[in-house]
Amino acid sequence: MQRDSEERTRRALALLDRLESGAPNRVTANLKAFDEEAVDLILGFAFADIVSRDGLDLRTREMLTVAMLSAMGTAPGQLDFHMRAAMNCGVKRSEIVEIVYQVAVYAGVPAAMNAITSAKKAFAAADA
Amino acid sequence: MQRDSEERTRRALALLDRLESGAPNRVTANLKAFDEEAVDLILGFAFADIVSRDGLDLRTREMLTVAMLSAMGTAPGQLDFHMRAAMNCGVKRSEIVEIVYQVAVYAGVPAAMNAITSAKKAFAAADA
Amino acid sequence: MQRDSEERTRRALALLDRLESGAPNRVTANLKAFDEEAVDLILGFAFADIVSRDGLDLRTREMLTVAMLSAMGTAPGQLDFHMRAAMNCGVKRSEIVEIVYQVAVYAGVPAAMNAITSAKKAFAAADA
Amino acid sequence: MQRDSEERTRRALALLDRLESGAPNRVTANLKAFDEEAVDLILGFAFADIVSRDGLDLRTREMLTVAMLSAMGTAPGQLDFHMRAAMNCGVKRSEIVEIVYQVAVYAGVPAAMNAITSAKKAFAAADA
Amino acid sequence: MQRDSEERTRRALALLDRLESGAPNRVTANLKAFDEEAVDLILGFAFADIVSRDGLDLRTREMLTVAMLSAMGTAPGQLDFHMRAAMNCGVKRSEIVEIVYQVAVYAGVPAAMNAITSAKKAFAAADA
Amino acid sequence: MQRDSEERTRRALALLDRLESGAPNRVTANLKAFDEEAVDLILGFAFADIVSRDGLDLRTREMLTVAMLSAMGTAPGQLDFHMRAAMNCGVKRSEIVEIVYQVAVYAGVPAAMNAITSAKKAFAAADA
Repeated sequence: MQRDSEERTRRALALLDRLESGAPNRVTANLKAFDEEAVDLILGFAFADIVSRDGLDLRTREMLTVAMLSAMGTAPGQLDFHMRAAMNCGVKRSEIVEIVYQVAVYAGVPAAMNAITSAKKAFAAADA
Repeated sequence: MQRDSEERTRRALALLDRLESGAPNRVTANLKAFDEEAVDLILGFAFADIVSRDGLDLRTREMLTVAMLSAMGTAPGQLDFHMRAAMNCGVKRSEIVEIVYQVAVYAGVPAAMNAITSAKKAFAAADA
Repeated sequence: MQRDSEERTRRALALLDRLESGAPNRVTANLKAFDEEAVDLILGFAFADIVSRDGLDLRTREMLTVAMLSAMGTAPGQLDFHMRAAMNCGVKRSEIVEIVYQVAVYAGVPAAMNAITSAKKAFAAADA
Repeated sequence: MQRDSEERTRRALALLDRLESGAPNRVTANLKAFDEEAVDLILGFAFADIVSRDGLDLRTREMLTVAMLSAMGTAPGQLDFHMRAAMNCGVKRSEIVEIVYQVAVYAGVPAAMNAITSAKKAFAAADA
Repeated sequence: MQRDSEERTRRALALLDRLESGAPNRVTANLKAFDEEAVDLILGFAFADIVSRDGLDLRTREMLTVAMLSAMGTAPGQLDFHMRAAMNCGVKRSEIVEIVYQVAVYAGVPAAMNAITSAKKAFAAADA
Repeated sequence: MQRDSEERTRRALALLDRLESGAPNRVTANLKAFDEEAVDLILGFAFADIVSRDGLDLRTREMLTVAMLSAMGTAPGQLDFHMRAAMNCGVKRSEIVEIVYQVAVYAGVPAAMNAITSAKKAFAAADA
C-alpha cells in the first residue's frame, strides 16, 4: 500500500474543515510557523489517519473528544474548539449538557465546571 | 418535588445491572463494607441522577465513559469494568477499537496501550 | 427517607454562601444559563449531599479542597475560589502556606507555584 | 543558619516512624538500593523540611495527603501507605469516609472508588 | 512524496528492536490480537514517524520518555519498558537516578517513588 | 556534613540566573511576598539540591523539564519559562521541535498543541 503525503494532508484538512469551517487555514498557518512538517505529522496522524476513519461517525467522535478533553482538563483552548466542532457536527446542546453532567461523575465537579464555561462559549458563538 | 432515597437506590442499581448483570450485589457489598451511605451517595449520584438520564442513550454514555477513563488513565479497574459494560450495552468491538485509536490522538500512545490491554480482557470475557 | 429537591438546593446554596458571601446568586445564574437542572445536579451533589455533611468541619474540608485542586492543577478558577473560601472559613494564611509547601512534596514544585499565585490573590482580596 | 545533613535525616526518619512504626528501616533500605543520596534528597525534603514543620499538625497533614493522592490517582501504593499513616496519626475511620466522599466531588467517582479500595485495606490492617 | 506502509512498519519495528531486542514480535502479536491495523497506526506514528526522526539521538529521546512517563504516572507498564529501553540505548544508571530526582521536583515525591520502583526493576534486569 | 542555608540559596539563585538572566530578583520577590521561607524551601530543593547536581548537564535537564511540563499540561506559565530557559541553556529550536513531536506520542496531540503555543512564544522572545 502506498500513502501519498499530500493526499493525506488534503484528507486531514478536509476533516478539519468539517469540524470548523475556515479552521484549516488558521491551523495550518499556526503549525507552519512552528515547523514545516507539523501539519503532516500532527494533523496527518490526528485527522487523516484516525478521526476520519470509518467505524464511528464524526458526530460521535466529537462527543468522545469533548468528554476526554473535559475529563483531562489540560487543554482548555482545544476544549473550546471541540465544543464548537461538536455542535458543527450535529451534537445538540442538550447532548452537550448530558456529556458535561457525565464528566462530573467520572472526573469531578471542577472538571464539569470548566466544561460548562467552555460549553457556554460555544452556545453563544452558535447564537451569534 | 420529592425524591425518595430508596427509589433512587433502586434506579441506580437497575442501571448498574444493565451495565453488568450481577454487578449490583457485588458493588453494593463492596460499598457497604466501606460505609452504609456510600451506595446512596456515590451510586445514587452516578447512576440514578446522571447516567440514567434521558438525552443520551446508555450505549453512547458507555462509549464516553470508556474514552474518559482511558484518557485519564487513573482507574484501570473501573476501565476494565466499563469496557465490559460498553459491550453489554451494545458497543461493538470495532467501535471500541475506534475509541482506543482516538484515545491515542487525544491522550497519547501509552493511554491507548493501557486501553488496548483493558479492551482485550473485555473481548476475551465476551468470548468465554 | 424522602428528600425534597427544593430543600436540598436551599442547603446547597446556604453552604455556598458560607464559602463566599454572595456566591449563590452568581453561581446559580452561571449554572442556570447552562441548564436549568445544573444547580440541583451539581451543587446539590457537591454542597448539599457531601460538603455540608457532619463528620468534618467546613474549615478542614476547605483545606482538603485547596490541597486537591492545587495537586490536580486542572481548575485554576476553582482553586482561586476555594483559596478565598478557605480563608472565609477560618483557614489562616499560615495554614495555607503550609498546605502549599505540602503540595510541593506530593504534586511537585510547578503545582506549588500555581498554588502560590492563587494564594497571593486570595491574600490580596482579603486585604482589600 | 547551618543545617546538619545527618540531623536532617534523623528528623525525616523520626517523622516517618510516626507515620508507620517500622517504616524507616524499610523505606531507607528501598531508597539506598536505588541511590545512596535518595534518603537525604527525597525524605529530607518531604519529611524533615516540609511535613515535620509546625503550623499544621501531622493529623491534618495526613488528611491532606490522603485527599491529594486520592485525587491525583497516580500513586496507589503511596495512597495505601498514607491511608494507614493517617489512621496511625489519629484520623478516624469516619473522617476517612468523609475525605473519600469529598474526593468524589472534586476528582470524580472513579477516584473515590480507588480510595475506597485503599481505605478498606487500611481499615482491615488496623483490625488485624 | 509517497509513503510505503510496509516500509513504515519495518522502520517502526527496527526502532522498537533497538529499544529492546525481541520486543517487535511480542508487541506486534499483542497489537494484532487487538486489531490488524494497530501496528501501522500506533507503532507507525510513534516509532516510524516520530521517535526515529533525526534531530535528537535515541538515547536523549529515551531520557525524555522516561521523564514524561514518570511525571504522568498513568502508564506503569510502559514506564518499566522505557526504563529498560533507556538503559539499552546507553542511558547510564547514574543518569536515570538524576532523571528520577528531577521528577521529584517537577511532579512530586510520589511520582519519583514510582519511578524508583520501576528503575530498580530495570537495574535488576540489566544485572540478570 | 554541614549545609549552609545562605550558601544553598546562593547556589539556587545562581542556577536560576543561568536559566533566565534576571529571573532571581523577580522570582525571589514573588516568593517572599508569599512567605519568607519559600525561597529556601522551594528554590533550595529544586535548584540547589537537584537541578544543579552533576550527572546531567543543564541543557539536558531543561529538555527533560520541557518534556515533563508539556506532558503534564498543568503549569502553562512554568512551561513558558522553561521553554525560554531551555533555549538559554543551548537547546536548539530544532530540538524543541523534536521534543514537542515526542510529547504528541506520549501525552497526545492537545498536549503537543499547548507546547507549540508555548514554544512559539519562546522563539519570538529569542528573536526580539
